[in-house]
Amino acid sequence: MVRAAFIGLGLMGMPMARNLRRAVDTLIVHNRSAGRTAQLVAEGLTGAGSGAEAARLADLVFSCVPGPADVRALYLRPGGVVEGLRTGQIVCEMSTIDPATHREVAAAVQAQGAHYLDAPVSGGTSGAREGTLSIMIGGDAAALARIRPQLQAMGKNIYHMGPVGAGAATKLVNQMMGAICALGVVEGLVLGVRAGLDPDQLYEVLSTSSGASRALTGHGPNILSRNFEPGFTIDLQYKDVSLAVQMARDLGVPTVAGGLAEQVIQTARALRLGSRSNAAVVQPLERAVGFEVRSKRPNPR
Amino acid sequence: MVRAAFIGLGLMGMPMARNLRRAVDTLIVHNRSAGRTAQLVAEGLTGAGSGAEAARLADLVFSCVPGPADVRALYLRPGGVVEGLRTGQIVCEMSTIDPATHREVAAAVQAQGAHYLDAPVSGGTSGAREGTLSIMIGGDAAALARIRPQLQAMGKNIYHMGPVGAGAATKLVNQMMGAICALGVVEGLVLGVRAGLDPDQLYEVLSTSSGASRALTGHGPNILSRNFEPGFTIDLQYKDVSLAVQMARDLGVPTVAGGLAEQVIQTARALRLGSRSNAAVVQPLERAVGFEVRSKRPNPR
Amino acid sequence: MVRAAFIGLGLMGMPMARNLRRAVDTLIVHNRSAGRTAQLVAEGLTGAGSGAEAARLADLVFSCVPGPADVRALYLRPGGVVEGLRTGQIVCEMSTIDPATHREVAAAVQAQGAHYLDAPVSGGTSGAREGTLSIMIGGDAAALARIRPQLQAMGKNIYHMGPVGAGAATKLVNQMMGAICALGVVEGLVLGVRAGLDPDQLYEVLSTSSGASRALTGHGPNILSRNFEPGFTIDLQYKDVSLAVQMARDLGVPTVAGGLAEQVIQTARALRLGSRSNAAVVQPLERAVGFEVRSKRPNPR
Amino acid sequence: MVRAAFIGLGLMGMPMARNLRRAVDTLIVHNRSAGRTAQLVAEGLTGAGSGAEAARLADLVFSCVPGPADVRALYLRPGGVVEGLRTGQIVCEMSTIDPATHREVAAAVQAQGAHYLDAPVSGGTSGAREGTLSIMIGGDAAALARIRPQLQAMGKNIYHMGPVGAGAATKLVNQMMGAICALGVVEGLVLGVRAGLDPDQLYEVLSTSSGASRALTGHGPNILSRNFEPGFTIDLQYKDVSLAVQMARDLGVPTVAGGLAEQVIQTARALRLGSRSNAAVVQPLERAVGFEVRSKRPNPR
Repeated sequence: MVRAAFIGLGLMGMPMARNLRRAVDTLIVHNRSAGRTAQLVAEGLTGAGSGAEAARLADLVFSCVPGPADVRALYLRPGGVVEGLRTGQIVCEMSTIDPATHREVAAAVQAQGAHYLDAPVSGGTSGAREGTLSIMIGGDAAALARIRPQLQAMGKNIYHMGPVGAGAATKLVNQMMGAICALGVVEGLVLGVRAGLDPDQLYEVLSTSSGASRALTGHGPNILSRNFEPGFTIDLQYKDVSLAVQMARDLGVPTVAGGLAEQVIQTARALRLGSRSNAAVVQPLERAVGFEVRSKRPNPR
Repeated sequence: MVRAAFIGLGLMGMPMARNLRRAVDTLIVHNRSAGRTAQLVAEGLTGAGSGAEAARLADLVFSCVPGPADVRALYLRPGGVVEGLRTGQIVCEMSTIDPATHREVAAAVQAQGAHYLDAPVSGGTSGAREGTLSIMIGGDAAALARIRPQLQAMGKNIYHMGPVGAGAATKLVNQMMGAICALGVVEGLVLGVRAGLDPDQLYEVLSTSSGASRALTGHGPNILSRNFEPGFTIDLQYKDVSLAVQMARDLGVPTVAGGLAEQVIQTARALRLGSRSNAAVVQPLERAVGFEVRSKRPNPR
Repeated sequence: MVRAAFIGLGLMGMPMARNLRRAVDTLIVHNRSAGRTAQLVAEGLTGAGSGAEAARLADLVFSCVPGPADVRALYLRPGGVVEGLRTGQIVCEMSTIDPATHREVAAAVQAQGAHYLDAPVSGGTSGAREGTLSIMIGGDAAALARIRPQLQAMGKNIYHMGPVGAGAATKLVNQMMGAICALGVVEGLVLGVRAGLDPDQLYEVLSTSSGASRALTGHGPNILSRNFEPGFTIDLQYKDVSLAVQMARDLGVPTVAGGLAEQVIQTARALRLGSRSNAAVVQPLERAVGFEVRSKRPNPR
Repeated sequence: MVRAAFIGLGLMGMPMARNLRRAVDTLIVHNRSAGRTAQLVAEGLTGAGSGAEAARLADLVFSCVPGPADVRALYLRPGGVVEGLRTGQIVCEMSTIDPATHREVAAAVQAQGAHYLDAPVSGGTSGAREGTLSIMIGGDAAALARIRPQLQAMGKNIYHMGPVGAGAATKLVNQMMGAICALGVVEGLVLGVRAGLDPDQLYEVLSTSSGASRALTGHGPNILSRNFEPGFTIDLQYKDVSLAVQMARDLGVPTVAGGLAEQVIQTARALRLGSRSNAAVVQPLERAVGFEVRSKRPNPR
């Protein structure tokens, strides 16, 4: 009988928990603000009042919260997960944070005799809902093997990248690469439209040419239709890219383009665009040049 | 009966001319250095000693040379193409240059009563060989319609982007976007490997994640296998990105990431990497950090 | 008897011409738009209707116009200066343009048997008025010796930097360095004020510390007092920095910071700040963060 | 009778302690590695075995250590300064660290009833030796007044910038501004020399022109004479600029140039130049272009 806990019921965590439910016998849920816990309790799941309680009630602990400070608070503070752990349990921490914080929390988890996997995900809210996330995992292979069925309920691609922190490193590299590509999308679309090209046609040609990227095909249609509903916000993207740049700092790797991406996203945040979708990273440049990359079609893609 | 000329028999032009041959009755060829002309004459084509002569012998004139100065020299100097043009001919200039130079040459061509299309291509030497190039065209739609069969012999996707210069604008935007993505590829791969990740596995995960781009899937395998044979050289990429940044300058569009990409590629050129494939843009950073992103597999992809 | 011509009576040229008058027997003046010529004719100087005429009437030709295209037009077009030159004359071209254009114009001047000096100036409109400009000169030392008395009427420091183009190279390097320092001024002042520091006190401490620069002591007081009257405009600074970056491009020197400075100034121009003083380069960042670096004192410096 | 402690006897702290001695009756000294303490004990000062002991023996506590982690360790760990504090004492923390760490340590100090001033210095090892440092202070004005005589023994300019953290904010802004100017120095000198200018003459003209900065007059002569002995190392400069960029991150201020400066300095560190003087920031670019900015004079300045 598999008893699991899922902690952190945000835009990502809520649908992940619902998928995880299908692969366990009992699912305990916990969230910092109680409302979301109540929502799942109403659906028949078991609520826990603290991280420690969730850990005590479960054998496997999954968590997904916003940033490093949240992970530290969830695990290390009084009433936190570590307090409730016992030998043989498996912790699978799925937030997007830095490898160093993972290693710090892992040490505390392992001191209780439990296993620790860092397991950030890629694929956005739609991937979370549809159970098609990519999951990048660092930690012990045997522990990973034990929770593979549960991971497969949430994700399609399960990658074992190396020891604790390797999942996070992979995720942060991915986030930084995507943010740099997005700079190209922004400057390219604005430049092309200023040069007189039709925005829709420009997008279509670029999306099949050598300059194409997931950032282009992900952001392009939303920019054209002026849809900046998140999905993934600029504030969250800033956190991720900032963590990537800090990881590079700690490792002594110069990242001029990563650093630039961080500052351009910071400009969007200064302009109070932080709660919009990260496609809105086009808006600071649009405001500077005084026009928008907007579809001329009645029903843009 | 269709008589066409193809001028500029370089790495791109030579296979393009061979494909064009299948869609015309007579093909006249010309190249600045005579050796390559002779090679095609030996295959049964007609050689011309100058641009003007090529234009006189043909109804349609196609050209593909390295940069703006080459296009100006080919068309505007004594003995150049413009000198040999007559009313009703169509010029299709396929080099990757800036819209302003196209407009300058177009004015001279049109003064002779001929039509002018700017038609840069995307798809590299393999696309040129296989006739699967993307062709981005600016100029008169009726003129384009007349040479569509010939374009289809060289390319798979024919895009009409707008008036003269619109093809070039599209191509330069694409080149700048790709170069910016390549910055992300370089910094991401180096950072990930420094963080302890396996290079091959990192590449595989990234290539299916949100940070992916054609720059990643194009350069990644070559970086892993340390194959920097061109294809497309750093010097040519520098020319293209530099033209894009200059177009942005003329249009008043700030391009911080495009400008950074230009300078990073310039660093590679300063380090005498200009004649290598543009995947070698990873090498300046590799030299700074003192290690390479090299596959550990016996037979890398 | 010394007969000189001064061509280009703009914000810099007008006061330079008035100072030059004191060191010559006859001064011929010419300007593209006739109004300014008329103004000096009313003061007793001799007007000329074209560059060629000015050259014919004078032994020494001084000129100061905005950019490379203006210099080319002034010298090389029909009716231009070159047309009016004869053996033994000295041309002293004082515009801030690139070395390559100087060398092109110098070749045409020398073909007439005249000498060519490139001699850009530093010191702004106040230096022009007070005759205290720095003048950076490229060209033949003997020619320079012949016009030294006239240069000393306009400037305090006369530097002979090398052959034709060396004056321009020095000036462009200076302009690029100053623009990069100005990025530091902008980001430093905005960051300090956001951190809660008093703007005036911050400026005073910084201006005597290791981060100080002429950009700080030049722009700081104007930023604090919100005085963006030119002086030297953002548009002119953009031209200069852009020429410096292009010179670096031609010489194969990567300039990541110079390129960034160019793009940040371009952002100011996109925001329609181009006609303001170059201290207004602070305004794009101020607009992004939503506050101003403004003195709290009743009578700011 | 004034009893003071000075903790941290590095390149800066050692001469600062020697100057402080002249303004106190008793000076207790402490250093992490005991050798340097012994050196001053041999000169007649009193050694302390821990931060707590130093605090117990003194009324005023001065400290100057490398970075935030060192400050935290010195004050907050068992045996640290805070453990030895009592009501009414004054702590003057002179390291260059971030405002947030100062506020964290200040809270612990104030909980003991003592006062806390953050007081980073500017002026380098020569300013430390000669007692001519600039000292930028945050904290209570009354506490500052009480230790002014001691500060004046170490520094010439004493600036009260605001509450705790204001000294650090000022210092970090200064460091970031200087590092950005240094980018201009590096690119400008390399570009000018590549353009064919004489390095010494270029330096002399620039140092009196509008692009000049303390970074230029500080680094220029050392670059020309190839003297990269620290003084202030690249590693320390990286720490400072990195802290400034992190402060900007926390405050939501985009700093594209500050971020670029950080990455360029990181490149120098990756190339193992970290222990050289920060004038060596020119070396990565010199290596890329393949030549040095080296004086041609027999006895460079």
